Amino acid sequence: MDEPLSNLDAKLRESMRTQIKQLQRELHTTIVYVTHDQTEAMTMGDRIALLNEGEIQQIGQPLELYNKPKNLFVASFIGTPKINVFRLVVNGNQLNNHDMSIVFGKPANKLSAQELYLAVRPEHLSLTQDKDLANLIGQVLNVEQLGSETLVTLNIDAQSFRAKLQGQLMMEPGETIYLIAKQSKLHYFDVESEARLEFDSKETS
Amino acid sequence: MDEPLSNLDAKLRESMRTQIKQLQRELHTTIVYVTHDQTEAMTMGDRIALLNEGEIQQIGQPLELYNKPKNLFVASFIGTPKINVFRLVVNGNQLNNHDMSIVFGKPANKLSAQELYLAVRPEHLSLTQDKDLANLIGQVLNVEQLGSETLVTLNIDAQSFRAKLQGQLMMEPGETIYLIAKQSKLHYFDVESEARLEFDSKETS
Repeated sequence: MDEPLSNLDAKLRESMRTQIKQLQRELHTTIVYVTHDQTEAMTMGDRIALLNEGEIQQIGQPLELYNKPKNLFVASFIGTPKINVFRLVVNGNQLNNHDMSIVFGKPANKLSAQELYLAVRPEHLSLTQDKDLANLIGQVLNVEQLGSETLVTLNIDAQSFRAKLQGQLMMEPGETIYLIAKQSKLHYFDVESEARLEFDSKETS
Repeated sequence: MDEPLSNLDAKLRESMRTQIKQLQRELHTTIVYVTHDQTEAMTMGDRIALLNEGEIQQIGQPLELYNKPKNLFVASFIGTPKINVFRLVVNGNQLNNHDMSIVFGKPANKLSAQELYLAVRPEHLSLTQDKDLANLIGQVLNVEQLGSETLVTLNIDAQSFRAKLQGQLMMEPGETIYLIAKQSKLHYFDVESEARLEFDSKETS
């Protein structure tokens, strides 16, 4: 199937996803489904082969691609809203940007690079009142109320990024907020190859 | 503007939302924005006028429509995935369906109707192990992994409904699960007029 749902409106697209999936289950047949919509790929695929310019970037179950993207392209493609990517400098025990509005701890084991990409999904950020605990200090650009969540677009170091926060939060454009990231959900990528960097404790040998 | 983003792909649509909103803020001008996409209405609108067959159903801020929909049409239109609606019978102190796989407490004050619609959003349902606490007992039809959430389509009483559960939950089609609803987030509607029924304690006079 080649993008079968792309011309439907949002509500119908959602219910058709479930119906096609059920049909496939009943028919016990393998279906190759081509889509640009990462939500369709995530929700309908048993396995995803993610292509970029004719080359396979990663093959795996949807959650494998979401949890352990092999490179920056996969990380940026899978997940909505899009993952936030920061180019940071290794600075003693820290990773930070030049004006220190982004500060993360440096992964424990060997790290020869002077720079790396740190990526964190909007849903893995949460608010903190404590400036010292904050990984990110951002200025609110735009607030989108989704009902069960609040999607905030922020500005940091002349770059915009997003946070998906639980609940209905009231904030105004211009406000400065402090965010903390789930440390276990951070992704690191090489600045040259854009390949995933693993900082597993087992790797330090 | 008449559905300006409907032909864009998902990623671009999302970033354009923020840009149009910023443009509008910079221009200090009023924009009338027509859309079928409830997410666009929710995230871009300062006020929404929701129309059905040429008639205004409700006018208000996005969160007013989400939190206090005036009728069943508004409740079903705003919010994604769509709100779940059950037609239930008033049975002593309970609201239930005929085979008792749906059981809710009856609102405290006067209720003359014998039947009503109870509506609960997928994001206001959560799992419980305790069958006695469950408001809904459903059979899993389909599981969609969104990464930060798991969207489950269930079958109850020959009707399908959805639950948006936090985290990456593993379940198989056919499994029976027990769900509990946030009591403060329930909506009630009249079966005839489909108008919102309020069971505010102040109303009992």
